Amino acid sequence: MTTTATGTTGSLAADPVTVLGLGDMGSAIARAFVERGHRTTVWNRTASKCRPLVEAGASAAATPDEAVEASRFVVVCLLDSAAVDEVLGSVTSSLAGKVLVNLTSGSPSQARSNERWARERGAEYLDGKIMGDPPDVGTSNVSLSFSGSRSAFDAHEPILRELGGVAYHGEDAGLAAVEFLAQVAMGYELLIGFLHTLSVVHAEGVEVEAFAERVAGSVAAYPPLLTMMGKAIGSGEYGPDLGSLRVQAALMDDLISHRESLGVEAVRMREVKELMDQRIADGHGGQGFSSLFELLTKR
Amino acid sequence: MTTTATGTTGSLAADPVTVLGLGDMGSAIARAFVERGHRTTVWNRTASKCRPLVEAGASAAATPDEAVEASRFVVVCLLDSAAVDEVLGSVTSSLAGKVLVNLTSGSPSQARSNERWARERGAEYLDGKIMGDPPDVGTSNVSLSFSGSRSAFDAHEPILRELGGVAYHGEDAGLAAVEFLAQVAMGYELLIGFLHTLSVVHAEGVEVEAFAERVAGSVAAYPPLLTMMGKAIGSGEYGPDLGSLRVQAALMDDLISHRESLGVEAVRMREVKELMDQRIADGHGGQGFSSLFELLTKR
Repeated sequence: MTTTATGTTGSLAADPVTVLGLGDMGSAIARAFVERGHRTTVWNRTASKCRPLVEAGASAAATPDEAVEASRFVVVCLLDSAAVDEVLGSVTSSLAGKVLVNLTSGSPSQARSNERWARERGAEYLDGKIMGDPPDVGTSNVSLSFSGSRSAFDAHEPILRELGGVAYHGEDAGLAAVEFLAQVAMGYELLIGFLHTLSVVHAEGVEVEAFAERVAGSVAAYPPLLTMMGKAIGSGEYGPDLGSLRVQAALMDDLISHRESLGVEAVRMREVKELMDQRIADGHGGQGFSSLFELLTKR
Repeated sequence: MTTTATGTTGSLAADPVTVLGLGDMGSAIARAFVERGHRTTVWNRTASKCRPLVEAGASAAATPDEAVEASRFVVVCLLDSAAVDEVLGSVTSSLAGKVLVNLTSGSPSQARSNERWARERGAEYLDGKIMGDPPDVGTSNVSLSFSGSRSAFDAHEPILRELGGVAYHGEDAGLAAVEFLAQVAMGYELLIGFLHTLSVVHAEGVEVEAFAERVAGSVAAYPPLLTMMGKAIGSGEYGPDLGSLRVQAALMDDLISHRESLGVEAVRMREVKELMDQRIADGHGGQGFSSLFELLTKR
């Protein structure tokens, strides 16, 4: 690619980068940067982890200080937030003017605290959470959520895109972690509900594998409904989506008594029924399922 | 369409049919049959409901006996199972050689009991459950699950297809109701998990509508995973699907503590964590999420 006067990814690709932490994910990130032509400096507590990266063209720093000094753009990808506190806390060289991109797992409040810490030292902070596996870094199978300094994100989006698909969620540094935790939790809600449903059909003598495939077909039809329910909740205007709560509540009774007849748990079904009964008692029986959100946020 | 010597839907369309029950769904079914050229006989407790169907070309029967005598193929679509027991219990004319297709809501055990009742009277029984709304009857937006007499299903599949997409689930007459209840329950598991997830991001100041759209995008990626997990459960060979349970359990701790920090419920997340801990303690920490199924069926 030729570099034009307006600047291209060709010129950005020359930006030096530092990667602190060479676990599976950190190593994959550092390798992606090396392969895309960045002057890449790496540091890891156990120095032997640097070797494959050095063989690929990276420079190994002996200390976090040395690594931080080597580049303005510093990526942190350590085991956990405690490791981040420890490694960054040991840095004595100036962070002023640096861009700190923390891709370590952690909570929203840890991200917010990191952001304050970096800001006090004159650095811009981006918190990032990665969905995907290390071997897929650099492909569209990996997606990264970012939050924190918007100017840092805007200036460095091309480099960040070298790692996978990216999305920016806002100046509140905790938002990338919120997005990650919520997306993962939604996945587990769906999957544990799936296992419970499989245990129901299994108890009725249905072949689980074939049923799972039929459920997969049904789940594929839900995304437009989720988007529609999100709109209803966002606007507070609850149409009867799946049918009025009065009609749906009768169906919940069938679901609960079926599970009870099999001795299978019905935790969520009973919760849904209670929420529906409450909304009906409150005079909202003509609204739909999405209106239950009102009760969840009031608890 | 010309009728050939081997028989076509053209010849089947001439089969007379009876529909007992003209609520919204029964009326839509009767109308679909009339429009497709069947000699259609209808009966309803409140006779005025027959009028629009008669105007469309159906014949109204004065009693269930008269309606049953009019056709070999008899569809029942009443308010509930109690109404089915009452109406069919009142029939004194012979049911021998009839095909009874019961599309009324009801449980698997009610379907099995209906099947025995019909068999004792020399009739073939099909239990059917409808997913979809009355205005969509006759289109692919309606799908019908059937179970019971395979020979009746095979012989009458073309007529049944006039109502929507059809699937046959087996000789056990309860299986259509199992399929219906399980598919509906899976939907509610997904949707209540969705509302809880929205309440988490809402508590963190995230715009719910935009997040719902992102979650819709993520959920669209789950069907292949569900199919894969169904295969693992069917075979009992549990690979590390989403990652080993040891790795996933650590993530559950993050999800639970995040929810606790917001005062948001974490019922399912805690349940998943307990199941994971149990599997790890049992020496299966290298297996994946799908292996939790083993614990659910053992409870």
